[in-house]
Amino acid sequence: MQSSAAPKDSGAGPGPDPDHPRTPLEPSTEPRTPSEPSTEPRTPSEPSTDPHTPFELSTDTLHPSLTDPVLSSMNLLNEVAHRFPDAISFAPGRPCEDFFAAEDIHRHLRTFCRYLTEERGLTTAQVDRTLCQYGPTNGIIQELVARNLAADEGMDVDPATVVMTVGFQEALFLVLRALRTDERDVLLAVEPAYVGLTGAARLLDLPVRPVAGTAATGVDLDDLVAQVRRARAAGLRPRACYLVPDFANPSGAGIGLDDRHRLLALADEHDILLLEDNPYGLFHGHRERLPTLKALDRARRVIYLGSFAKTVLPGARVGYAVADQPVRDSATGRTAPLAAHLSKIKSMLTVNTSPIAQAVVGGKLIEHGYDLADANARARERYARNLDQVLDGLARRFRSRAGAPHTVGIEWNTPTGGFFVVLTVPFTVDDDLLEHSARRYGVLWTPMCHFYSGAGGDRQLRLSVSLVTEDEIEEGLDRLAALVAERCSRPGDRPAARSTR
Amino acid sequence: MQSSAAPKDSGAGPGPDPDHPRTPLEPSTEPRTPSEPSTEPRTPSEPSTDPHTPFELSTDTLHPSLTDPVLSSMNLLNEVAHRFPDAISFAPGRPCEDFFAAEDIHRHLRTFCRYLTEERGLTTAQVDRTLCQYGPTNGIIQELVARNLAADEGMDVDPATVVMTVGFQEALFLVLRALRTDERDVLLAVEPAYVGLTGAARLLDLPVRPVAGTAATGVDLDDLVAQVRRARAAGLRPRACYLVPDFANPSGAGIGLDDRHRLLALADEHDILLLEDNPYGLFHGHRERLPTLKALDRARRVIYLGSFAKTVLPGARVGYAVADQPVRDSATGRTAPLAAHLSKIKSMLTVNTSPIAQAVVGGKLIEHGYDLADANARARERYARNLDQVLDGLARRFRSRAGAPHTVGIEWNTPTGGFFVVLTVPFTVDDDLLEHSARRYGVLWTPMCHFYSGAGGDRQLRLSVSLVTEDEIEEGLDRLAALVAERCSRPGDRPAARSTR
Repeated sequence: MQSSAAPKDSGAGPGPDPDHPRTPLEPSTEPRTPSEPSTEPRTPSEPSTDPHTPFELSTDTLHPSLTDPVLSSMNLLNEVAHRFPDAISFAPGRPCEDFFAAEDIHRHLRTFCRYLTEERGLTTAQVDRTLCQYGPTNGIIQELVARNLAADEGMDVDPATVVMTVGFQEALFLVLRALRTDERDVLLAVEPAYVGLTGAARLLDLPVRPVAGTAATGVDLDDLVAQVRRARAAGLRPRACYLVPDFANPSGAGIGLDDRHRLLALADEHDILLLEDNPYGLFHGHRERLPTLKALDRARRVIYLGSFAKTVLPGARVGYAVADQPVRDSATGRTAPLAAHLSKIKSMLTVNTSPIAQAVVGGKLIEHGYDLADANARARERYARNLDQVLDGLARRFRSRAGAPHTVGIEWNTPTGGFFVVLTVPFTVDDDLLEHSARRYGVLWTPMCHFYSGAGGDRQLRLSVSLVTEDEIEEGLDRLAALVAERCSRPGDRPAARSTR
Repeated sequence: MQSSAAPKDSGAGPGPDPDHPRTPLEPSTEPRTPSEPSTEPRTPSEPSTDPHTPFELSTDTLHPSLTDPVLSSMNLLNEVAHRFPDAISFAPGRPCEDFFAAEDIHRHLRTFCRYLTEERGLTTAQVDRTLCQYGPTNGIIQELVARNLAADEGMDVDPATVVMTVGFQEALFLVLRALRTDERDVLLAVEPAYVGLTGAARLLDLPVRPVAGTAATGVDLDDLVAQVRRARAAGLRPRACYLVPDFANPSGAGIGLDDRHRLLALADEHDILLLEDNPYGLFHGHRERLPTLKALDRARRVIYLGSFAKTVLPGARVGYAVADQPVRDSATGRTAPLAAHLSKIKSMLTVNTSPIAQAVVGGKLIEHGYDLADANARARERYARNLDQVLDGLARRFRSRAGAPHTVGIEWNTPTGGFFVVLTVPFTVDDDLLEHSARRYGVLWTPMCHFYSGAGGDRQLRLSVSLVTEDEIEEGLDRLAALVAERCSRPGDRPAARSTR
């Protein structure tokens, strides 16, 4: 929570709340809005009608999610970043800011308006109405998104099965709302899992059951099957499994081609849906990209959740769901795609996604011939270079020349793309250590324990490579190494026989 | 539902889904996106793994809201409008389109960026980041909104108690999510009620109990108290009462000053919150404006739900909640404003409201010195003139010179502002009659029955005055009069002794 002395104005500075990158630490140095208001509400100008029992609410009478640590973790981490604005930050998963500018917004809007006039044949009044008036619930750029998915992912998507949303997060929420019928429904999620998944499920009182993730293969398929069986044996209905097959947040892990095919077969065999979240797929480093689950999906088992936050502009807040599953109306016998049902939910949640924001995304898509892989070539190179530099930097600092670790218990994975690397250390990693790291060493990162529902990740931290410069990486890793050295020299924290991975 | 032959492209035309105006009929003539995808999902390019039992979902296994007529009513009405694009429409509550243009978006954005540079002292990189990057969950223009509320409503609002949202609708959803703790919680709402209220509550399995509305005073205060007592006697917890004190949608009714004071006293006495929705307050016709409930609120009983859809631009999709109620954390004993809790929910629902969209609204606020009453002077005149013309037109068509109705059972209310008039007729008004009206007479309106949870409004229709021209009003009322004459001449529908209002 912010102290009441924190600056109140809200016009300044970007905010700390990322979508997919999902760590909320804020590296900017300018004063900015606290993400949470002051803890001391001002005294009302007149007393309550009964001054002896002034009206107040209690967390006891609000939805239980509001006291769930998951919903507060973002704010907690933001708060650390806010207090240490000069720290080098490996925390936020936001895209690199060198690749966008406010002036682009104007160009994208004009491109989209030209498309409406020239390709769609709209009059000026109709163009004005398209951007300024309310819009269709499902959106105004589904056709362009389908072209983009064809260009970037080789996916053949009917625009009628696409719902444009306020970022990936709303798309996820719509799907979870549709699938959560009653208290018997549960969701599976590969752990460690993005907090936005856990938080959205919490808002809907939808339990999340963890499926073991592995650094090597992304998901433990045997555990997936075991979890489905265990849930069914308990009288529950596992509806879907959430996963990020490409360079997952927070683990950086990826799922291989054979396992993708196996996953689809298992989903069909065990009658569950797969929720595929793919914000980082285009940032595939120097290796070939694998097809998405949705591109391989022949049985309509995959709901694809898309984001333009990393590939177009986070500030547009535009994402989408591809939901082509036929839904039979039990009363009429007619079928409609799941997207039509998500649209009904959306109409009561946000009515429609800002057509201005969609126009910005649409304009960029048009400018690049719908090919965001091409549009993001420079960004991809940047992230790949940063990832290599972080991995090399870890090796130089934590491995002997023979390749063995200097210190027992120090390990890290080697993702081939995306934004994230997970470092395992031989001491406890928690919010207190983050505070210490920020205060004493001026370096920020994300404790992995935030991504586990139970125990897990307590000796791990996530390093994000997307927002740091070359110099910051070297200096930041030096600072991190100093923190590690300090902790490893403390008797109580010295690596024991216990394996930390 | 759209037939599969409906145009699929989504780039064209504004959509039919309004926020507050809340009737989804679409008067535009250009081809546009169906608000719901095709009913016939395409055949998958390869068969399911088991061709005999292809995978499909059933509405039986989706959340019950999806088969609730409330969630489908918007789409149903859209569909009628879509099939009769040339009809004169008194249906949509969207703001008049003569007052905005796509070019304004560019100017507003530049104004906001200049403010960031000149008033807030941001560098170009910081401005770029503010608009393009993720932003704070609570928003970036709360300070400007507070200045607007001071200018327009005489309200003294701490920006730290404001949460910027994706339109009014998300603000409402955040509040309902916070208040709905378990199955004992219920919401009260003045009926007839906006379908967006009923729909949002349905998504959260939160029962809505109707409070009688009256055309004269807006809300029946005795019934409010009776409903609170009845709910408590049934072991339930009435948490709040939703109302639109100024020119309500759909009734057009308003609440007088004395009743506003009484409402606040009753809320305190009976320990409930008031959810004040105020999209039409600035369109007060030719009378003086009354203070909002929130402006009169000394006991923090009012959560104010704001919208810029009517006063700035619907396409920005920006609204907000003012939630200054102190919430005590039962674990720590510390208090924080309810806004801080709404922010936690928002972080898992939409992460943050597009800073680009907020910048558009912020720019307009700055351009008009935060005074939207002044900025909307021409719009207010237009709506007031239209309202007068509709009321006069009804009188000319349905009253004798002596002022008595031509036909028993034809009545209408006389709102002093806002967008809506309710016409009562001596025959059943339903979706079938709307279809008949569109096909035979080329005039659209909204059946009032959609705004009632049980019986109610079955002989009433809503006329919206915001989007029609002078000529359309005369021609449209002629067509409506022809429909009324036809129905009144049918033996079965002839007015009986039964009073219809």
